[in-house]
Amino acid sequence: MGILLIGGKVVTAVDAYYADVRIENDKIGSIGSDLGKTDDEIIDAHGCYIIPGGIDTHTHFALNVGTMTTADDFKSGTKAAIVGGTTTIIDYATQNKGGSLKEALHAQHEKSAGVCYCDYGFHMGITDWNDEVALEMEEMINEGVTSFKLYMAYKGNLQVDDGVILKALNKSRKTKTLICFHCENGDVIDELISEAKIKNHTTPYYHAKTRPVEAEREAITRLLNFSEIMDTPVYIVHLSSREGLLSILDAKKRGVKVFVETCPQYLLLNDSCYGEEKSDSFEGAKSVISPPLRKDYDQEALWKGISQGEIKTIGSDHCSFNYKGQKDIGINDFTKIPNGAPGVENRMGLIYTYGVVSGKISINEMVAITSTNAAKTFGMFPQKGTISIGSDADIVVWDPNFKSYITAVNQTQKVDYNLFEGFEQQGRVLHEFLRGNKVISNGELVEKEPLGKYIFRKINK
Amino acid sequence: MGILLIGGKVVTAVDAYYADVRIENDKIGSIGSDLGKTDDEIIDAHGCYIIPGGIDTHTHFALNVGTMTTADDFKSGTKAAIVGGTTTIIDYATQNKGGSLKEALHAQHEKSAGVCYCDYGFHMGITDWNDEVALEMEEMINEGVTSFKLYMAYKGNLQVDDGVILKALNKSRKTKTLICFHCENGDVIDELISEAKIKNHTTPYYHAKTRPVEAEREAITRLLNFSEIMDTPVYIVHLSSREGLLSILDAKKRGVKVFVETCPQYLLLNDSCYGEEKSDSFEGAKSVISPPLRKDYDQEALWKGISQGEIKTIGSDHCSFNYKGQKDIGINDFTKIPNGAPGVENRMGLIYTYGVVSGKISINEMVAITSTNAAKTFGMFPQKGTISIGSDADIVVWDPNFKSYITAVNQTQKVDYNLFEGFEQQGRVLHEFLRGNKVISNGELVEKEPLGKYIFRKINK
Amino acid sequence: MGILLIGGKVVTAVDAYYADVRIENDKIGSIGSDLGKTDDEIIDAHGCYIIPGGIDTHTHFALNVGTMTTADDFKSGTKAAIVGGTTTIIDYATQNKGGSLKEALHAQHEKSAGVCYCDYGFHMGITDWNDEVALEMEEMINEGVTSFKLYMAYKGNLQVDDGVILKALNKSRKTKTLICFHCENGDVIDELISEAKIKNHTTPYYHAKTRPVEAEREAITRLLNFSEIMDTPVYIVHLSSREGLLSILDAKKRGVKVFVETCPQYLLLNDSCYGEEKSDSFEGAKSVISPPLRKDYDQEALWKGISQGEIKTIGSDHCSFNYKGQKDIGINDFTKIPNGAPGVENRMGLIYTYGVVSGKISINEMVAITSTNAAKTFGMFPQKGTISIGSDADIVVWDPNFKSYITAVNQTQKVDYNLFEGFEQQGRVLHEFLRGNKVISNGELVEKEPLGKYIFRKINK
Amino acid sequence: MGILLIGGKVVTAVDAYYADVRIENDKIGSIGSDLGKTDDEIIDAHGCYIIPGGIDTHTHFALNVGTMTTADDFKSGTKAAIVGGTTTIIDYATQNKGGSLKEALHAQHEKSAGVCYCDYGFHMGITDWNDEVALEMEEMINEGVTSFKLYMAYKGNLQVDDGVILKALNKSRKTKTLICFHCENGDVIDELISEAKIKNHTTPYYHAKTRPVEAEREAITRLLNFSEIMDTPVYIVHLSSREGLLSILDAKKRGVKVFVETCPQYLLLNDSCYGEEKSDSFEGAKSVISPPLRKDYDQEALWKGISQGEIKTIGSDHCSFNYKGQKDIGINDFTKIPNGAPGVENRMGLIYTYGVVSGKISINEMVAITSTNAAKTFGMFPQKGTISIGSDADIVVWDPNFKSYITAVNQTQKVDYNLFEGFEQQGRVLHEFLRGNKVISNGELVEKEPLGKYIFRKINK
Repeated sequence: MGILLIGGKVVTAVDAYYADVRIENDKIGSIGSDLGKTDDEIIDAHGCYIIPGGIDTHTHFALNVGTMTTADDFKSGTKAAIVGGTTTIIDYATQNKGGSLKEALHAQHEKSAGVCYCDYGFHMGITDWNDEVALEMEEMINEGVTSFKLYMAYKGNLQVDDGVILKALNKSRKTKTLICFHCENGDVIDELISEAKIKNHTTPYYHAKTRPVEAEREAITRLLNFSEIMDTPVYIVHLSSREGLLSILDAKKRGVKVFVETCPQYLLLNDSCYGEEKSDSFEGAKSVISPPLRKDYDQEALWKGISQGEIKTIGSDHCSFNYKGQKDIGINDFTKIPNGAPGVENRMGLIYTYGVVSGKISINEMVAITSTNAAKTFGMFPQKGTISIGSDADIVVWDPNFKSYITAVNQTQKVDYNLFEGFEQQGRVLHEFLRGNKVISNGELVEKEPLGKYIFRKINK
Repeated sequence: MGILLIGGKVVTAVDAYYADVRIENDKIGSIGSDLGKTDDEIIDAHGCYIIPGGIDTHTHFALNVGTMTTADDFKSGTKAAIVGGTTTIIDYATQNKGGSLKEALHAQHEKSAGVCYCDYGFHMGITDWNDEVALEMEEMINEGVTSFKLYMAYKGNLQVDDGVILKALNKSRKTKTLICFHCENGDVIDELISEAKIKNHTTPYYHAKTRPVEAEREAITRLLNFSEIMDTPVYIVHLSSREGLLSILDAKKRGVKVFVETCPQYLLLNDSCYGEEKSDSFEGAKSVISPPLRKDYDQEALWKGISQGEIKTIGSDHCSFNYKGQKDIGINDFTKIPNGAPGVENRMGLIYTYGVVSGKISINEMVAITSTNAAKTFGMFPQKGTISIGSDADIVVWDPNFKSYITAVNQTQKVDYNLFEGFEQQGRVLHEFLRGNKVISNGELVEKEPLGKYIFRKINK
Repeated sequence: MGILLIGGKVVTAVDAYYADVRIENDKIGSIGSDLGKTDDEIIDAHGCYIIPGGIDTHTHFALNVGTMTTADDFKSGTKAAIVGGTTTIIDYATQNKGGSLKEALHAQHEKSAGVCYCDYGFHMGITDWNDEVALEMEEMINEGVTSFKLYMAYKGNLQVDDGVILKALNKSRKTKTLICFHCENGDVIDELISEAKIKNHTTPYYHAKTRPVEAEREAITRLLNFSEIMDTPVYIVHLSSREGLLSILDAKKRGVKVFVETCPQYLLLNDSCYGEEKSDSFEGAKSVISPPLRKDYDQEALWKGISQGEIKTIGSDHCSFNYKGQKDIGINDFTKIPNGAPGVENRMGLIYTYGVVSGKISINEMVAITSTNAAKTFGMFPQKGTISIGSDADIVVWDPNFKSYITAVNQTQKVDYNLFEGFEQQGRVLHEFLRGNKVISNGELVEKEPLGKYIFRKINK
Repeated sequence: MGILLIGGKVVTAVDAYYADVRIENDKIGSIGSDLGKTDDEIIDAHGCYIIPGGIDTHTHFALNVGTMTTADDFKSGTKAAIVGGTTTIIDYATQNKGGSLKEALHAQHEKSAGVCYCDYGFHMGITDWNDEVALEMEEMINEGVTSFKLYMAYKGNLQVDDGVILKALNKSRKTKTLICFHCENGDVIDELISEAKIKNHTTPYYHAKTRPVEAEREAITRLLNFSEIMDTPVYIVHLSSREGLLSILDAKKRGVKVFVETCPQYLLLNDSCYGEEKSDSFEGAKSVISPPLRKDYDQEALWKGISQGEIKTIGSDHCSFNYKGQKDIGINDFTKIPNGAPGVENRMGLIYTYGVVSGKISINEMVAITSTNAAKTFGMFPQKGTISIGSDADIVVWDPNFKSYITAVNQTQKVDYNLFEGFEQQGRVLHEFLRGNKVISNGELVEKEPLGKYIFRKINK
């Protein structure tokens, strides 16, 4: 017995055509017409798009930042992912200073095993380089971890120096793995924060002021010089600015190979979220994320970067802290506000509404940036990321006409606010399958058990 | 009764997976396994790629250049196309000075009707602008012609001035049609030719010297300024140089939307084909094409442009003149040598061998640049250009292991030389279908009748 | 008997020091202290700068534009120059279509001989290229004309095509002469005017809208490509925009040699002078100049270009038409408004006030851009353009403290308005010498006879 | 009694004219004709240029590098300067780790007091940042030290991290001082050296290979981002590469203010000095300097940078180690070779011969880059750097016709080789004055006592 989706429009990163899709066990079996077998379950998809389940390249669930832990753990986070049409997330494991990568991976498996509603993998954050870690980079491949992360910001904590970046890139070339980079110059930020403190600048407004686009541009430019010198590609997470994008384009002119991710918040929100300079409001704390929100022209540039194929992936950078009880620890000092915001639940809907419906991108491009490219970049293709024969039946039947408003009131993610509160949203997940399991039916979560599996990712080539 | 291709690896611009493909009449009906019906013809595709038939965006068959006509007409040209794995070509109709577009289209239909082995369409070359022509641009849409061409070179003949370019772009924005541009500054070339004549420089070597990359770069830069001012995309044919590509990238940084085509000859040959400065050899005449062949670093840049997604289409610019009896009219004056070279037959094989086998691009990228992107850019998608349900069954079963050498001796194109003489080639067309008709079987042309149809192309959106 | 200026601060493009300056006959004889001879006239310059008389690189006096002639002729124009501290102007002679350069030069000599209050030379505008004109380019050198001008705008009138530009550049390389270019793409402007007419856009506001910065950028980029191809420097007149400047900088990165001029109006006024889109006011006609006034960020970029040494000369582009009786011919059609505005009288004062006093440039830089660089670029150095032994005693004793307001009411230039009406001005000409003749004394014109001589300019090197 | 130089051609950065120059005591008193007083000493300068004494912005005399001290101390180094036409040098004092700036300055005064043949000043190298040092930056101004230096290379030794750079720039903005930067990324170099060691690459050839242009470009790009963020100009020492220059030009397009120095060795020598990859020769050790010698196209780009006004100063970076007994400590390990080479003696002659005589730059430009710009940039103008009334009579009477060859055999600098051995040189110092004291007469050092004084430099504005 299989499941037959009939009458929908199948969309991949390149194609869009009317056809029936037959799910056989956990895989996509056939596409065409007249495919049904006796006792197949028939699901009507007329008027809907049949698209690959989303892949969120960037989440932080159950993240302990020392003083507190994110509001969402793997359970609530992955449930929100499923509700939003995302069937795979890649979260970050992060090495403790003095610790090993294996320990970090083990800890992350502990937190996630058996509680995830969607499939999941891990990037490995490296914070403390030594010869052991260099060896572990290779060993991680056997653990299904083929991507890493280095931070150019957060001095004295996560930030690594140029020497570490270069050594890690050297290793990534040899192992054909990929390193993700948080590109902001932490020293610039620290110096600007020092200046801000002298001036008694304490409100969330100054979070943005002390993390200017120049800090992002500098880090990107430097990184792409290193990428060129070490002859290995890099992946830039959460690009936020036009200047950053222009630096990337300049490096590409020289032939540098770089993958770029942005997030819905950088496409749809701007720095007015931090309020006026003189305002006492703490509301801006909700938007205290790094890099910070930018200007309208940055949003435009990022959309253009997507439609020109320069930006290939969309992560949510979901890292949720409650406004009350967590964010407010920084009420008198913006540097104490935990950085991050929720978003895993809304990623697909926002891209559909403000990308596809608004005419900025095609439905094919939406599939590419929310799913296919992520699978290809991070070693999960063609198992994930497309509607093709033999791929996992991670399928979203997307009803393009449903309209709603985003609000924290009825969200699945377990945090007390939503960055996109009040945003209109068009389209929704009508039905959804995870490896052939129906998890959403008629817009409702029907699978109550967490079926998510850890994905062993491969190296590319 | 259908045709069932079994055991092959289906490749689109994004996917690659093992599956059977069932052709129903002229369309692709189903993809998957277990698809056969009684009395289906079974074709074994094990070990082969199943790819969409190639689309050559740029041919000149039966082109009369005043003093002579190209060696290949529509019959021999399209037969060569089919032999090489190309199932659709877009040729150029060209307005006569003082004439109308309709006349030009009519003339081209006369030459092509009933003799084509592959499907075909026409771009419309505009050489003489007036209000009538402006109106005809709209009327052409009903004739299935949705792309045009303007020449920035060939002063006193095909070249139009900036005013015409601007008016035509204005019209293309309003009609959502696309204009193709030959980007070389004809005035620069003329001035350099004048200088060359003064110095009695007459050999093919000076063909290249009088058409420097700067002439291409200038035309591209100017055009993309016009594109920006008139707010409408443009298509650049036969890009030949790194400098040209860099100009394109600079314009894209400003958000200019541009489609770029290159040709196998610019990817694989260099200006050593024109011989030494002092040589008397006329051999270089074979490579007298415009723009001319460039340097190795230009080839590198173009390959990189393809792999970075900046160059989207590959045309052959097939425009064949016999070396003996045609090219040699310019034996004492390189400016008299008819410009052009053959290539329609070798386009797919060369891209496979020197792109895919050499590791420069993936098989998906090959499908994209030889077929899918062309179909999308020129209003034929999804009828053409992909392997998906409901598309025309224009299918090539590509045997990746067959090895051969290119030689004019056994070519199908009816011209007395081949630019790529002696090039090793890997892979070949094992079987080929044109709208479900088997035209090549086991490497042999089995369909003796010309089945090609004119394709009514649409405007994009 | 000589003239001894005592106690002033001598300023050249590089030096600034306190010293006496002794004028002997028409030249500067000695600089230092204790220089006086018996019966020398002593002039007290304490508290003043002693600077070289200004050189205005760009005037149009007595210009007949077909329907009318400029308000200022050589007499009133050069008198205004002297009053403003300018001791040399370079005006434009312009070839008539079908006419020769010699005729044009002769006509200009007729208009100017014996009536000029300051020294003067001519650039030669070429509008109609042929072999005779090519020869005349060489012959002009013997006439003291070593610079030429070509227009990339004013289609159907002054505009020349790319072929002419290239031929002329070829000739300028061979003769070591320099060609000045008006850089706007006339075809772009014509097409935008056509569109404006269709929409019944007739007010001065649309003068600016139909001459966008992109038209300037395109022309500059094209020209600098030609300069590179023809391997000869060029001179860009009246640069108005940031985009234009950025294009110049890009070309300089490739090694292109280019001289750049801007005008006070592009440094100090913006497009608000054209009024609001819907306004009926005709006031904007006063600012109908080409290129048009731009944005504040263009002004900033131009000032930066000066302080970075990218822009070397300041011309007034003085071309005056009365608002009443001349400009108003275009009251119902902005395309009929004669292009141009006055400015020769205010050039030095504006640069001093808004450049030096405001701290944007040093007094040395003022001397460089208002005088020295012009003399060097246009073959008059060291006769003109500096305070050094043996140079013409063209000297301005500049009182830096005097304050006034610019107004047409008391101006010397013979036109009924002033673009800078109401601008505060600091500094003034206290005394002024033309080749040792005292022409201004204590702020008053004391020399009633026109002493100006034609300057035979040389080629550089 | 004064000294009267008669009949020479006085050259400043802008002027060039025939005149007599009268020296009164230590200053230039008058310029012109007919200036002599009774009992003036008359010196014939017919046929010669009268130029300001050279200012070498970059020397390292008596530098202790831990294992050894440079071959030249202040005595031999400044004597060589005088012999070569340089009347002022700026050497580097360098803070010891844990030490203060005052101590470093004191130590340098100890080494130099009373032994210098030319005038001298000090830049202050900062290697160890703390709040005390921040305060000392201000106090240094009172000591006549208004420029500092930070190293972006030499990790674990002189290199400072981004945080220090930013803090120091912040301080330089507030104090209006200027910081000089050695721009190479030390981490890149270390990583490449690690790789080289693994491969047993030990010869001088690998000195260049492990310090690629990308390391310089990266450091420059980063620095200019910091300069922009901190809104203060910077000074780049010893620029060596085209890529570096292009990065500077890109930053200048954004308005970044930067001063650039290069050295004769980067203009005249290339990496062939390091020999072939497989060669055993140790000769390349003579050219082991940082950054290393580059390619011919880098030389071209640097010359173009000078003639376009982008590179303003020429330092020798004189840092001499004997080939035998010093350089050869690294015979088996290129990383042990002390970095540096001599050059103070040849700077002026090389720029004259290969810049002016070859036609690359004018004699005015030579004066600008060898003297005037240095004086202006480093707070010594108009005391030093020009021929104008009231300036120090630091004058070189340059005989432009004398020809010689450079050789270590007869050099004044006390080291056993010369980088430019065998180079032809045109022109020489005929006479030379240091603050009115005749130190060279008819090409011979006539002043046997060290007359050099320490120059208290000022801040700019």
